[in-house]
Amino acid sequence: MPLQGNALIGQSGGPTIVINGSLVGAIEAAEKRAEIDSFYGALCGLTGVLNEQMMDLFREDDDLIRRMRYTPSAALGSCRLKPTEDDLERCMEVFRAHDIRYFFYNGGNDSQLTCHLISELAKSSDWDMQVIGIPKTIDNDLVITDNCPGFGSAARYAAWAVQCAARDALAFGNVEVVEVMGRHAGWLTGATQCGRKEDWMAPHLVYLPEVTVDPDKFLADCQSTFDEYGYLVVAVSEGFNFGESELANTSEKLDEFGHARLGGVAEALADMIEESIGVRARFDKLGNLQRAFSPCMSKADADEAYAVGQDAVNRAMAGETDIMITIQRLSNDPFEFETETTSLMSVADATKLVPDDWINEEGNGVTDEFIQYCMPLISGAAFALPDGLPEYSVFQRHPVERKLPPYERKKQ
Amino acid sequence: MPLQGNALIGQSGGPTIVINGSLVGAIEAAEKRAEIDSFYGALCGLTGVLNEQMMDLFREDDDLIRRMRYTPSAALGSCRLKPTEDDLERCMEVFRAHDIRYFFYNGGNDSQLTCHLISELAKSSDWDMQVIGIPKTIDNDLVITDNCPGFGSAARYAAWAVQCAARDALAFGNVEVVEVMGRHAGWLTGATQCGRKEDWMAPHLVYLPEVTVDPDKFLADCQSTFDEYGYLVVAVSEGFNFGESELANTSEKLDEFGHARLGGVAEALADMIEESIGVRARFDKLGNLQRAFSPCMSKADADEAYAVGQDAVNRAMAGETDIMITIQRLSNDPFEFETETTSLMSVADATKLVPDDWINEEGNGVTDEFIQYCMPLISGAAFALPDGLPEYSVFQRHPVERKLPPYERKKQ
Repeated sequence: MPLQGNALIGQSGGPTIVINGSLVGAIEAAEKRAEIDSFYGALCGLTGVLNEQMMDLFREDDDLIRRMRYTPSAALGSCRLKPTEDDLERCMEVFRAHDIRYFFYNGGNDSQLTCHLISELAKSSDWDMQVIGIPKTIDNDLVITDNCPGFGSAARYAAWAVQCAARDALAFGNVEVVEVMGRHAGWLTGATQCGRKEDWMAPHLVYLPEVTVDPDKFLADCQSTFDEYGYLVVAVSEGFNFGESELANTSEKLDEFGHARLGGVAEALADMIEESIGVRARFDKLGNLQRAFSPCMSKADADEAYAVGQDAVNRAMAGETDIMITIQRLSNDPFEFETETTSLMSVADATKLVPDDWINEEGNGVTDEFIQYCMPLISGAAFALPDGLPEYSVFQRHPVERKLPPYERKKQ
Repeated sequence: MPLQGNALIGQSGGPTIVINGSLVGAIEAAEKRAEIDSFYGALCGLTGVLNEQMMDLFREDDDLIRRMRYTPSAALGSCRLKPTEDDLERCMEVFRAHDIRYFFYNGGNDSQLTCHLISELAKSSDWDMQVIGIPKTIDNDLVITDNCPGFGSAARYAAWAVQCAARDALAFGNVEVVEVMGRHAGWLTGATQCGRKEDWMAPHLVYLPEVTVDPDKFLADCQSTFDEYGYLVVAVSEGFNFGESELANTSEKLDEFGHARLGGVAEALADMIEESIGVRARFDKLGNLQRAFSPCMSKADADEAYAVGQDAVNRAMAGETDIMITIQRLSNDPFEFETETTSLMSVADATKLVPDDWINEEGNGVTDEFIQYCMPLISGAAFALPDGLPEYSVFQRHPVERKLPPYERKKQ
């Protein structure tokens, strides 16, 4: 018998172009289930749980919910918060106070770990609650799932952007370095190679963080490629590295998880190439638009995002818990998938890098297998770009009444 | 009687999303004119004239020409070249050798000056040649013409990008600074405000290079806006300036016209805001995609680009010379325009800044008049973003046989 009570959902980590698709999938599935009395959204992920800042999603306008499906970036707000023991205890208090029997959390591997810790604590606290993780990351680095909702659209934007920026470099016969997000996993950077249909096309050289690049070989490859095609487009991950050789690309600032804020790789490399081959080298950093530029929303990605949100609710109703929803690919053409599950622990502390045999021998590009994997995820347009400018809205945010004293978070 | 002979066209300066629309407009008009024996394209603008590197445009495939209309960035290649007296003399030799009776040059005010110098020299050399400038710049800073082809699409991209990046800032409740091209004229930066339909929406603060910003007022505006809306999106031009106060935003490198290569304004401001208001501030530089991201091609802009190319050829046939084609706006809704002309000298050495009364009194935004001016130029989509990735092609480039000894350009 499914539990009767309230459900709560949060969005965590870097937003994506399709993140609200999962939210809408979950809301629309929840609306059909009598077991769910109210469906709450936590404002800014776990921060909203800790501070008891929640909104009543069932009271939002249906039309607004439908439009939100194609609105980029977390509609509930997001956070990057690594919960302490105290934080987790506080979450339990909030769950009890609001009779939360279903908890859904949408994020990457840090968020799935949070989800697992909550699931464990609920069990040991004897609080019956189904906890389900919904995958989401533009990095595509969650293990077990075929791919991660959020990746396809980011990759579609990055691939279009490289093709467009390349035209500018071609017109001037110079060098362009494009910096793509990805500290450890090069999926997004590799995907830009999907646009290279003939040898003369860009990107000519593609560097993933999985590869340690030799500076001399790098410059030699740049020189010979430029000599051959009369222009040069290089796609590099944020996590591009020369191994022990120096590259001035790390900022001293750290994010909340202690990861270094990276930046400036493309600029540093452009300067280096310009000096070495004597041709003007420019750079573009695709930046935050990779997770927000909705005109490039991919159809496969939008469909996946909705499906994992919907499935999370349905599986919770079926009594499943401590799992993350995964994507299982069924066919490439037409692209078809189904949703499956895996334990939260299986994904929580792992990172799926691009496998060695999907990187070419030269270490400066990806293989055909990589391209065949990516192409169905980025090919289709989710919608036609409308006339006018975006009509993005925000939820009305009907607040859920607080029941607990305020929470004072201890400094770590 | 129109002159019988050959025509030559070149593309110059920073490419735009619609630049090839003008080229295709000119080719298709020229194909209908018996007076034009051959229509040549100069490779990389004036550089191709100097080096006698020209291609025969009439021999290009018609289908390829039609597709090129929607392909971003100069299909003939571009250059930034300030011609010397020797260069101009060499151009005349090339024109004579190839019986060039019609010369078209597509660019901004630097290029229109080049065009005028060529026109003058042709007259004084007793070489009958019609010289017509075709306007093109994303900066929208040519005088007399209502607007410049290239601007509308760049502005459409910038406005979409700011709306999308803003969602990311909204989700985290933090600060985002977006850097938009524009050293002296703030048209492109101002256009991003078209997306701000309600006060809470982005961009909240918009800084044009026409305004000298007081650092204290700037930070106070950032603080109060952040306090009011819980997030803050600032759009700034490359040429943002604090007057005599320092801002580390100029590189020591100069371009070929001696303009400083600007960069880093958004980064510097984001650091400054983060330090002042204590909220994480991120930045994005829209970069080269502003003149190449074809998914955001604007219909009005694409129509204008084609029309000025077509009209340049038709007016040359009608005996007009030493002029630039201009846009005259007829109505806003629906957007209608016609082409007119002005003398090359009237536009060559002038820059149209955003007028004072189109900038708000606070100096941190544009007025409704500005928005009404921009909106029709950026609203419509030129085409629906197709499935798949771009299928950009290059011309086959059938070379025109050389008739002169090579040209050795003297170092200036």
